[in-house]
Amino acid sequence: MTSFLHAFLAPNSIAIVGASSDPTKRGYKALFGLIKDGYEGSIYPINPKVEAILGVKTYPTIMALPEAVDLALICTPAKTLPSILEQCGTNGIKGAIVLASGFGETGEAGLQLECQVLAAARKASVRIIGPNTSGIFNLHKKINLLALDNVKSGNVGIISQSGNMLLALALEAAKNGHIGFSIYIGPGNQVDVDFADYLRFLGEEDNTSVATFYIEGFKNGRAFLDVARQTTQIKPVVVYKSGSTKAGQKAACSHTGALAGSYAMTVDLLRQSGVNVVNRSDELLTVAEGLGLLLKAEGKRVAILSDGGGQATIASDRLIEAGLKLASFSEVTLAALGCILFPQASLINPVDVAGSTDDNPALFSSCIEILVADENVDMVFLVGMFGGYGIRFAEELKPVELITAKSIVNLSKRTDKPLVVYSLYASIKPEPLLLLRNGGIPVYDSIEHAVQVIAALGERGDYIHRCKTAEIQHPLRADPEVCAVFQRAQREGRDLFEFEAKSMLSQYGIDMPEQRVIRRDADYSQVMADFGDTLMAMKVVSKDILHKSDAGGVKLNLSGEPALRQGCKEILSSCRHYKADAEIEGMLVTPMAAKGVEVIVGVSRDPFFGPVLMFGLGGIFVEVLEDVAFRSIPLSRQDAFSMIEQIKASKVLEGIRGEAAVDKNALVDLLLKVSSIVETHTEIHELDLNPVIVYPNGYAVVDARVIISGKLPL
Amino acid sequence: MTSFLHAFLAPNSIAIVGASSDPTKRGYKALFGLIKDGYEGSIYPINPKVEAILGVKTYPTIMALPEAVDLALICTPAKTLPSILEQCGTNGIKGAIVLASGFGETGEAGLQLECQVLAAARKASVRIIGPNTSGIFNLHKKINLLALDNVKSGNVGIISQSGNMLLALALEAAKNGHIGFSIYIGPGNQVDVDFADYLRFLGEEDNTSVATFYIEGFKNGRAFLDVARQTTQIKPVVVYKSGSTKAGQKAACSHTGALAGSYAMTVDLLRQSGVNVVNRSDELLTVAEGLGLLLKAEGKRVAILSDGGGQATIASDRLIEAGLKLASFSEVTLAALGCILFPQASLINPVDVAGSTDDNPALFSSCIEILVADENVDMVFLVGMFGGYGIRFAEELKPVELITAKSIVNLSKRTDKPLVVYSLYASIKPEPLLLLRNGGIPVYDSIEHAVQVIAALGERGDYIHRCKTAEIQHPLRADPEVCAVFQRAQREGRDLFEFEAKSMLSQYGIDMPEQRVIRRDADYSQVMADFGDTLMAMKVVSKDILHKSDAGGVKLNLSGEPALRQGCKEILSSCRHYKADAEIEGMLVTPMAAKGVEVIVGVSRDPFFGPVLMFGLGGIFVEVLEDVAFRSIPLSRQDAFSMIEQIKASKVLEGIRGEAAVDKNALVDLLLKVSSIVETHTEIHELDLNPVIVYPNGYAVVDARVIISGKLPL
Repeated sequence: MTSFLHAFLAPNSIAIVGASSDPTKRGYKALFGLIKDGYEGSIYPINPKVEAILGVKTYPTIMALPEAVDLALICTPAKTLPSILEQCGTNGIKGAIVLASGFGETGEAGLQLECQVLAAARKASVRIIGPNTSGIFNLHKKINLLALDNVKSGNVGIISQSGNMLLALALEAAKNGHIGFSIYIGPGNQVDVDFADYLRFLGEEDNTSVATFYIEGFKNGRAFLDVARQTTQIKPVVVYKSGSTKAGQKAACSHTGALAGSYAMTVDLLRQSGVNVVNRSDELLTVAEGLGLLLKAEGKRVAILSDGGGQATIASDRLIEAGLKLASFSEVTLAALGCILFPQASLINPVDVAGSTDDNPALFSSCIEILVADENVDMVFLVGMFGGYGIRFAEELKPVELITAKSIVNLSKRTDKPLVVYSLYASIKPEPLLLLRNGGIPVYDSIEHAVQVIAALGERGDYIHRCKTAEIQHPLRADPEVCAVFQRAQREGRDLFEFEAKSMLSQYGIDMPEQRVIRRDADYSQVMADFGDTLMAMKVVSKDILHKSDAGGVKLNLSGEPALRQGCKEILSSCRHYKADAEIEGMLVTPMAAKGVEVIVGVSRDPFFGPVLMFGLGGIFVEVLEDVAFRSIPLSRQDAFSMIEQIKASKVLEGIRGEAAVDKNALVDLLLKVSSIVETHTEIHELDLNPVIVYPNGYAVVDARVIISGKLPL
Repeated sequence: MTSFLHAFLAPNSIAIVGASSDPTKRGYKALFGLIKDGYEGSIYPINPKVEAILGVKTYPTIMALPEAVDLALICTPAKTLPSILEQCGTNGIKGAIVLASGFGETGEAGLQLECQVLAAARKASVRIIGPNTSGIFNLHKKINLLALDNVKSGNVGIISQSGNMLLALALEAAKNGHIGFSIYIGPGNQVDVDFADYLRFLGEEDNTSVATFYIEGFKNGRAFLDVARQTTQIKPVVVYKSGSTKAGQKAACSHTGALAGSYAMTVDLLRQSGVNVVNRSDELLTVAEGLGLLLKAEGKRVAILSDGGGQATIASDRLIEAGLKLASFSEVTLAALGCILFPQASLINPVDVAGSTDDNPALFSSCIEILVADENVDMVFLVGMFGGYGIRFAEELKPVELITAKSIVNLSKRTDKPLVVYSLYASIKPEPLLLLRNGGIPVYDSIEHAVQVIAALGERGDYIHRCKTAEIQHPLRADPEVCAVFQRAQREGRDLFEFEAKSMLSQYGIDMPEQRVIRRDADYSQVMADFGDTLMAMKVVSKDILHKSDAGGVKLNLSGEPALRQGCKEILSSCRHYKADAEIEGMLVTPMAAKGVEVIVGVSRDPFFGPVLMFGLGGIFVEVLEDVAFRSIPLSRQDAFSMIEQIKASKVLEGIRGEAAVDKNALVDLLLKVSSIVETHTEIHELDLNPVIVYPNGYAVVDARVIISGKLPL
């Protein structure tokens, strides 16, 4: 599908509604910017009071325009909007950028005006960017409605919910000297066009090779994920999401009214869709630059080539911390390096040339050639003084460095393996480093920043690879019996009973322990016949008792009929004490589960992201350490595996203290089935399997809770 | 104590042994550097072959020098060293800088030469910097033996085990434009003078206001900690320690032969001594600069003042993640801010001026004035465009910004509360920002970097405060009975039996469950008399069985004499099966401990850092999550509290799932007693209390293991 934004974000004609001859006004600045930058389309300032502004003829109203215009920049106050949008519609204007503030961000009255504006826009068939936006630019079209100085056109597209953040990135790009921008859009209040629309647009926009976002909060996160899954196949998408702490979420809320869900969840879901998420604001442009140049790596095995042991050490630490691997070189590589480097050089990754290059930096290109040829190497990280040999050691090394840089650039054209450079001299920008950068090789002045780029390349490569092999889960066919259970519960205005939830899960192929519900005296003998003196768990079945343990509604390790009867008696007495009028359906009995590793599988429907599955180890791991992973439903098999491996305590699943590893395949199957069930049964509002006990073979779902929607009021 | 390094690191005369007229040699470069920089002392090049170098008269040998010289720079090869050092001694030279490599870092032969050199130096009473050092500089004395360009003198002292790292910092300082250096020393192989000596020296050196270290590995970490504890009282000490991963440790080892202990332990011990540890190499100079200017904050409550909501949000996130707090403003502060800012400004921390400053940046100094006056505020973080208003908005704001900057500087002189600035325009260095920086207020171009500085100021303030209130633990008087137990075990060539270890701990006031050792039949009746049918644990007592559980030497939940006897029988049989000739002393019986929170307390003697205490939650937390804290022994009460609070799972100790909080005071007492015991009894090589079960009142030590040194061979 092609984005509707092309029609007016690369406009051949622009109307400036509220154009002004006051140089401090946006209605002047935008016009000034268009003229200064040499915009080649038609400009129509709208102002009934003057004949011309900056020599451009004005028009009194939109209705008076001589042609149908592509884009309107509206600089007039909030209350004028409904009528102006109506006029835009009459003119055939496709899109409007609304700068005015005073809408939803100011409270109730503003929110009402926002609704009117949206209604007017819909009626007029005009799409709106904003309101309360800082504006847009499209530098390849010479449109810079923010009239920003010192931004050059390039390949980085930016969507930022903060104007200052854009300014910071623009200044950083100017300092860097290489980075240029294609498109900027300030989404403002997103009453109409939203992040997902912008992402689709940037994905399709030819001048943009990386889509970069500063996001405080999504209005429709689900739509963003859906577009991201497609876009990240084509080009890198980098997101900095603010609100990683409660304090940050509060600040974001008072800034853009953004309501944040869980930060950890948002990050997991974005990554699941192939988005590169950065954790630091000062790494957003760095990573965007690197991904824009190098796109991806085939894997995470990095070769470090260094002329200083200290920085080789630092680089090793950072790479490992970022989840990358130091490549193990082949014998051929080691031998080849050994031939050209001093005997005291360290050949085992990280390679430390140990002085070999001091009077011959040309060796760097030979070393890179050797490293790139090694099939155990996915990326090369050059660390150290390259670019500064002519400065630090001897003037005559300058031409050698230049030739070396050229040959490194040539080499990089012949390989798909990314080369990333950290140089002590990066900020001085000596010619050899400029040559590298102009040849498409990014050069950083911080080891830490360079490593973030390498990590992003590896992650994106991994993701693309995972997608290629992704097994798509086919949705389930809804089981009529299960549907009937849901409908009965809805009619009765209650959630599923635990035994119903378990039967439902079992119906769809999830392994479930045997269970019986004791409703009357005669049921005991059947239970005894079925289970004998097996140790049993007994739980109250009642729509009125949600927290069974709190109500004394659970007895464990009961064996034999007398114990079961006694257990039932005690539960009844406790539950009546807890809630006198509780309607008690019976007692669920089920064999006690053997010991194993406790995990939690949960599903909730997030207001922004829709159905989300959570996985974690039980108890303290979830409650205290918040060590959980999230994935958007539906999951692929790869998603399920990756979420199991993502949790910090995943080592526990491998078997600790001599225990056997748990059955990860069974666990993955369970996650996939839960995903399919929730996809099929939209009645499921929340689902909790807590705990599930996992064994070296299979698992046991000990407790299941299903909260449903569509319940009739009682 | 005054450092011996003053005598020769601020020398009035320097001999260059191996001075050369070849411009590529260090023996030329050093001389050239001294002359170029205008060194005011006497220079004596030693070279028997030429009359003069660079116009300076040479001397054929050290013996031929006309006076006793302070410092010798030795540029000759490794093998010449012993005889040269002898001559240095004869001349009365106090210290020598040895550049030559080819010592311990190259293997066995080099190590032998290193020993000879050290012996020669000791005999000659000459102290050695190096060998294998990159050299030193003392810029205030105009001594730059590295002949580095573009370093200016200033207040940052640097010790770096990596020459490239020094060069990187020098280039970063040059780019920054403000940062200058006092002293640099490359410690090289540290055969004689080591990190601790350098730290003491920098602590005393008047031109140095912050001591900065890049460290791959300590030879004597204990000495460094001891000096750090004193030095950090006087001035900030910042350390970047490499080797945070196994890969990094391996790389460091092949670089400087550094043998790393646990990174997490090293960081904990450094912080215990008041050192500010940075985790990223690109934050070392940043943090050093900030600490050098601002020294410390009284607390961790930060006020954010911003002109952009997005960056206020980012700053909030980063501050909280770094362990800082957003200050809660007083009513007075809120009212005062409300008076001067627009109604739409957000006054609750983070303060977002929301356009109030757009045409009047002078409001920033008024706001800072208000924030600094609030007793709930320890630091102010100014975030946004300040310095760029004249560039971004209107030329005529430039003088306003200048006046504002001046008034902010004046204000900063009147308060102890640090002010840290992040500006989008920092890298452009507009005049208002230069004014701030020259007035002692650091300005950063990254929110993340600025936050690291704020965190370091807060941590240092916290540390100084903790030291002031630190309760010193008085060492114990060794108990003669306990000494006898140790001596007996040493004589018998074994470690302490568990019951001995527990008695020993109990002797020094650690609460210990009752225990009995059953050695003969008659002991059962005594145990029955003492404990009745209490549930008991039984463990084998044998010097030959270290891992009691593995040997089947443990039985739990035994009640009554028959059960005890049966337990004993089974243990004996299992243990004989496990080790046929095991000498079995008896059975230790002790009441089963009630359930509670399991923790581990361990002590080991680290080869680099001496006795170190470890604390963590039991089981998975230690084994899988490595969630433990380390402190050097002896501990202060504050150390003990802080290590309990440091672990990620510390929330478990506060009581989760409705459980009561555990008795932290009892736990602290336990840690302090263990510390004192280990301090007193140097025979203790390792001590493990695993687990200790902690309750809302008190604790129970369930298992105690004490490994001793000084055992006689059997």
